[in-house]
Amino acid sequence: MSTPSKIPVAVLGATGTVGQRFIALLDSHPWFEVAAVTASQRSEGKAYREAASWIQASPMPAEIRERVLRPTVPEAVAGCPLVFSALDARAADHLEAPFAEAGHLVVTNARSHRLDPDVPLMVAEVNPDHLGLLDTQSWPGGIIANPNCSTIGLVLALKPLVQAFGVRRLHVVSLQAISGAGLPGISSYQILDNLIPRIPGEEEKLESEPRKIFGRFSEGGIEPYPIAVSAQCNRVPVVDGHTLCVSVELGRKASEEEILKVWREYRSEAQRLLLPSAPQRPIHVLEGDDHPQPRLHRDLEGGMAASVGRLRSCPLLDYKFVTVSHNTVRGAAGGALLLAELAAAQGKIPGVAVPATS
Amino acid sequence: MSTPSKIPVAVLGATGTVGQRFIALLDSHPWFEVAAVTASQRSEGKAYREAASWIQASPMPAEIRERVLRPTVPEAVAGCPLVFSALDARAADHLEAPFAEAGHLVVTNARSHRLDPDVPLMVAEVNPDHLGLLDTQSWPGGIIANPNCSTIGLVLALKPLVQAFGVRRLHVVSLQAISGAGLPGISSYQILDNLIPRIPGEEEKLESEPRKIFGRFSEGGIEPYPIAVSAQCNRVPVVDGHTLCVSVELGRKASEEEILKVWREYRSEAQRLLLPSAPQRPIHVLEGDDHPQPRLHRDLEGGMAASVGRLRSCPLLDYKFVTVSHNTVRGAAGGALLLAELAAAQGKIPGVAVPATS
Amino acid sequence: MSTPSKIPVAVLGATGTVGQRFIALLDSHPWFEVAAVTASQRSEGKAYREAASWIQASPMPAEIRERVLRPTVPEAVAGCPLVFSALDARAADHLEAPFAEAGHLVVTNARSHRLDPDVPLMVAEVNPDHLGLLDTQSWPGGIIANPNCSTIGLVLALKPLVQAFGVRRLHVVSLQAISGAGLPGISSYQILDNLIPRIPGEEEKLESEPRKIFGRFSEGGIEPYPIAVSAQCNRVPVVDGHTLCVSVELGRKASEEEILKVWREYRSEAQRLLLPSAPQRPIHVLEGDDHPQPRLHRDLEGGMAASVGRLRSCPLLDYKFVTVSHNTVRGAAGGALLLAELAAAQGKIPGVAVPATS
Amino acid sequence: MSTPSKIPVAVLGATGTVGQRFIALLDSHPWFEVAAVTASQRSEGKAYREAASWIQASPMPAEIRERVLRPTVPEAVAGCPLVFSALDARAADHLEAPFAEAGHLVVTNARSHRLDPDVPLMVAEVNPDHLGLLDTQSWPGGIIANPNCSTIGLVLALKPLVQAFGVRRLHVVSLQAISGAGLPGISSYQILDNLIPRIPGEEEKLESEPRKIFGRFSEGGIEPYPIAVSAQCNRVPVVDGHTLCVSVELGRKASEEEILKVWREYRSEAQRLLLPSAPQRPIHVLEGDDHPQPRLHRDLEGGMAASVGRLRSCPLLDYKFVTVSHNTVRGAAGGALLLAELAAAQGKIPGVAVPATS
Repeated sequence: MSTPSKIPVAVLGATGTVGQRFIALLDSHPWFEVAAVTASQRSEGKAYREAASWIQASPMPAEIRERVLRPTVPEAVAGCPLVFSALDARAADHLEAPFAEAGHLVVTNARSHRLDPDVPLMVAEVNPDHLGLLDTQSWPGGIIANPNCSTIGLVLALKPLVQAFGVRRLHVVSLQAISGAGLPGISSYQILDNLIPRIPGEEEKLESEPRKIFGRFSEGGIEPYPIAVSAQCNRVPVVDGHTLCVSVELGRKASEEEILKVWREYRSEAQRLLLPSAPQRPIHVLEGDDHPQPRLHRDLEGGMAASVGRLRSCPLLDYKFVTVSHNTVRGAAGGALLLAELAAAQGKIPGVAVPATS
Repeated sequence: MSTPSKIPVAVLGATGTVGQRFIALLDSHPWFEVAAVTASQRSEGKAYREAASWIQASPMPAEIRERVLRPTVPEAVAGCPLVFSALDARAADHLEAPFAEAGHLVVTNARSHRLDPDVPLMVAEVNPDHLGLLDTQSWPGGIIANPNCSTIGLVLALKPLVQAFGVRRLHVVSLQAISGAGLPGISSYQILDNLIPRIPGEEEKLESEPRKIFGRFSEGGIEPYPIAVSAQCNRVPVVDGHTLCVSVELGRKASEEEILKVWREYRSEAQRLLLPSAPQRPIHVLEGDDHPQPRLHRDLEGGMAASVGRLRSCPLLDYKFVTVSHNTVRGAAGGALLLAELAAAQGKIPGVAVPATS
Repeated sequence: MSTPSKIPVAVLGATGTVGQRFIALLDSHPWFEVAAVTASQRSEGKAYREAASWIQASPMPAEIRERVLRPTVPEAVAGCPLVFSALDARAADHLEAPFAEAGHLVVTNARSHRLDPDVPLMVAEVNPDHLGLLDTQSWPGGIIANPNCSTIGLVLALKPLVQAFGVRRLHVVSLQAISGAGLPGISSYQILDNLIPRIPGEEEKLESEPRKIFGRFSEGGIEPYPIAVSAQCNRVPVVDGHTLCVSVELGRKASEEEILKVWREYRSEAQRLLLPSAPQRPIHVLEGDDHPQPRLHRDLEGGMAASVGRLRSCPLLDYKFVTVSHNTVRGAAGGALLLAELAAAQGKIPGVAVPATS
Repeated sequence: MSTPSKIPVAVLGATGTVGQRFIALLDSHPWFEVAAVTASQRSEGKAYREAASWIQASPMPAEIRERVLRPTVPEAVAGCPLVFSALDARAADHLEAPFAEAGHLVVTNARSHRLDPDVPLMVAEVNPDHLGLLDTQSWPGGIIANPNCSTIGLVLALKPLVQAFGVRRLHVVSLQAISGAGLPGISSYQILDNLIPRIPGEEEKLESEPRKIFGRFSEGGIEPYPIAVSAQCNRVPVVDGHTLCVSVELGRKASEEEILKVWREYRSEAQRLLLPSAPQRPIHVLEGDDHPQPRLHRDLEGGMAASVGRLRSCPLLDYKFVTVSHNTVRGAAGGALLLAELAAAQGKIPGVAVPATS
């Protein structure tokens, strides 16, 4: 059943909403192939279709339906050099490191190791050089962390500005989709005709993660980027797609045209390598005066592109703008997959040759 | 049918959503009584129940059902010293001044005259002294303007801070209910599973109106309050209730306790006079760590109180907090009604004695 | 603190959504007064405000906030002759009967005893005579059951037709609000931009309960009413208010006018006794050609009235119509409260005198 | 710019929601190519991107952006033998026939000619033989009509039953998405936290169109199928996807297994011809006990497949089931496109050779 030339991968916590996204995105992937799926003790031993309450718009891939769920331990995924973790943080806290210890490269969506000094916190288009941190890890394998779903959209939109002008201060208010809370997640009784002006732990992540992601990598580790962020996070009745209202103070003055230009022209290593999941343009500048909007723009380039719009001057800082990105694709499973593709292309998967890019 | 001791009032533009709120709130009002309703040419001459697409949760008041809609001209409301305007701005631009010219006191919800130097832009609990501007108007009657629906919640929450500590800079992102756009307003196809990160003209209002409202009144007019505001406005799929995410820089340092104290203790002339529509406490400080929320808190004190919560320090300015208020009650018809009550209590309705307050 | 003349009552399962509605509706009740609240072991001993995730639009009554939650056993509510049960069915299965055994009158919203032959399944306006079944129960106290939330709206709308013309066959499709599933209930991820065409167990209840409710009471018990019902139940993204699309075959032919007349004129014992929670008119016939609608009409008469509309002929049976009622007020806590008032007025609460009705 | 081998087509009323779907679905179509777009007088002469408020999830096709909108008259689309009409009924009433008169084949989504005796009312998989009616039309060109969006899902699900067992009586309650009402369509203020239990004209269409669609075609025209339908139609807050709750009485008794079998095995001419827009399986039988659901299943096979589920016996008729289909793809533009492909494959487009099917 297995294609010899593909890299066998495991998905940890494969039945939850992020796990399902991994399964859907890995279906027919040119490099990777799902060889093992794991779940919590409650679902262990069941067929995937029995245990997963499948809630994706695409049908459950046929070859996964009868796959038996294994325990979330390294022995269960022995033949998989690459492991995607969709575990929730509580499980990830103690379950992920053993996989790295056992020689697997773990690309994780959980927050557990994000701020560990030797774990790269990465967005493929933003700080690919941080992969170098893997060499400083003490495990035979390694861990790469995907940032928080709202951080990802933010740093994607900011990267060209950081690179061209510097960014000093940032005010961001998020309007986040309910899919980010998983299943059961937010009760409909809490959010219909309503919004919730707090997401536990989220503001802290938005205020801290960009400092590490934009940090300078050297042999001594990551030197944090000197940016001050004030974040307010809201849950709104939108299914998918996080919207951020951003005000930004630049390191040096720049005109609207300069900003639009660096956004439009931004391409990264991920684009140059033609990684399978990389969007052609990581940032789409929209012209509609009330764009971007989550339902209209979350699916651009298969949900892997961030969109920006409404650039205008800010009476307090320099500029205001709006950015939208798909929280469970770009902001979770898709972003992690792209990180794994980058690691593969750079020979960072233990014992695996670099796949041929087209 | 008419109660001799009540003041006959007219509602201009009585069939729209704000007009309907006026009708609902004026039902059984202790001082005022709806004596005339007007509408656009299309509805003129029809019975109210025929022309109004009634969308309030309370039934249409029986005595209004068969009321015939009149043209929106002063002659049609001759016996009404007090006139509420629920006209949209395009109509209000040229239709309101003739009523003031004809001797009526117009309390308007439209934006047309808000920034006129001699028109008071008022929230009853915030700047009651601005009523004095009426004396500088050249009309035999007068015009008092209700601020924009999102401004009202903002200045209510800020007033105690302005008074106690001063406020210098303000960053505000609004998440506004769809009822604010009236009927037909926002198409469901635009907003279901979505949000719209722009409300035409709204950011400008939030950035300018507080300067006038908090301004110092003297014989020479209003001296604007020196506050810098950056606003970003979003329409979200919530029926009623605007939520504001606010960051504020105070004039002098204050502790969280001091802020909570001035919020909790704030009372104004409107409360002291026991005006019929005045909330007992204009500001409710909520303790829930994810409060306030529009569906849960918009109806506090009949929709006339603003609620605040989530006070915490801000990495950029001094403090962050969240405030919610009912946009079509406190932010429109209810706020205007309270202004009229204040004007009546202070003898500002032409030819009308001051009503007895309890 | 206690008013001597009021009847002390207990609420079992007081922290859930139906329990909260009981607490809200009992606040300032003229006859009853909450003397005890119980909860599951997890919340036992906590203050009510700590344990309840309060989600009502009205604030939590002050006197309940610090009330300590007791275990759900008869000893904990010794002084309360009347007990409201908001337990879920799994708990109610074994927890309710001991209260009846201990001498309490239990008015329950749970389904556990609904189809017990000697337990009256009642809607106050529909089958008040079934109270007589209490005398056949073997407990010193007793149990009265409130029907399923969607059944209540259905039988209210049907009662005048059953009485005047008879009803033989019924086709009903429900569009039910999410509040009916409680908290956490339906995940927002399942229902936003979606609907769920199944509610476990609901169709069976709609197909069976009307037969008992409309049944003839005699000493031998309830003889089921010969009605055939086909039900299809859907969960839709509406907060409160169940909508039913009904097709009905009458026992004898009747004109639209006759039907409208019996609906409009329907009054019951509950209205004649002026029970505190009884709506003045249990059924409101609406004229709007797209009425009733849940958001507009669920709150009629404090949520205690059912509304009907769109009566028209049916190509298969005799007539089609639409009915809306508030599922957690009329369909749950409010309906149960009205049953308790009826029982009190008829001297059915053990050891308690009949309250004076106005 | 034009591909010589493709058939040039025009889209009438190209800027509305159905028009936009036509544009999106015709992008990269293997047989057809958009050569002309028309609009109402208000938009005539403008570029498409200026006039269309694009609300599709896929970006506006690049080659359409600058296309100038023409008037909706035959002279404006002279080179297009095939014309898709997305006009609303009021415009279609008088604008479509002139195109047929001028020699074009018009495939229309409007209701104007649906019940004309010589106009085929067709679903490609249901009654392809009705194409024969074209020969009886008096125009040099012709008109083919797409049924109402909710009818299409219904007759797709019923076709295998009609064919295998016959269907005599039908009870259907629809829960219809808001996109069916177009833009601006349903106001968000009307439908958020609500539903509307009436769609003007919709019940009549559901009760009459199936009789024509399932009718027997002969030289004398269509002999209506003897089926009695009772329909109740509701608008619910769902973006796309109509859900129907159906009860059906069969012509002869059949077991659940027989029904599931004819549903699963159903294929039509459209599948055998491998028409570009034809789904591989027009009907998907879902196993989930609360399936189908609009958000999860509307997009099956690009939105062209209907899904069915919850087959169970009905206490009044024979069986109950639920069906979901995408109302603006399968139920509008996609269905019309498939009809045009069928007409092309059968040589019914005036002056155009039959395209090669793969």
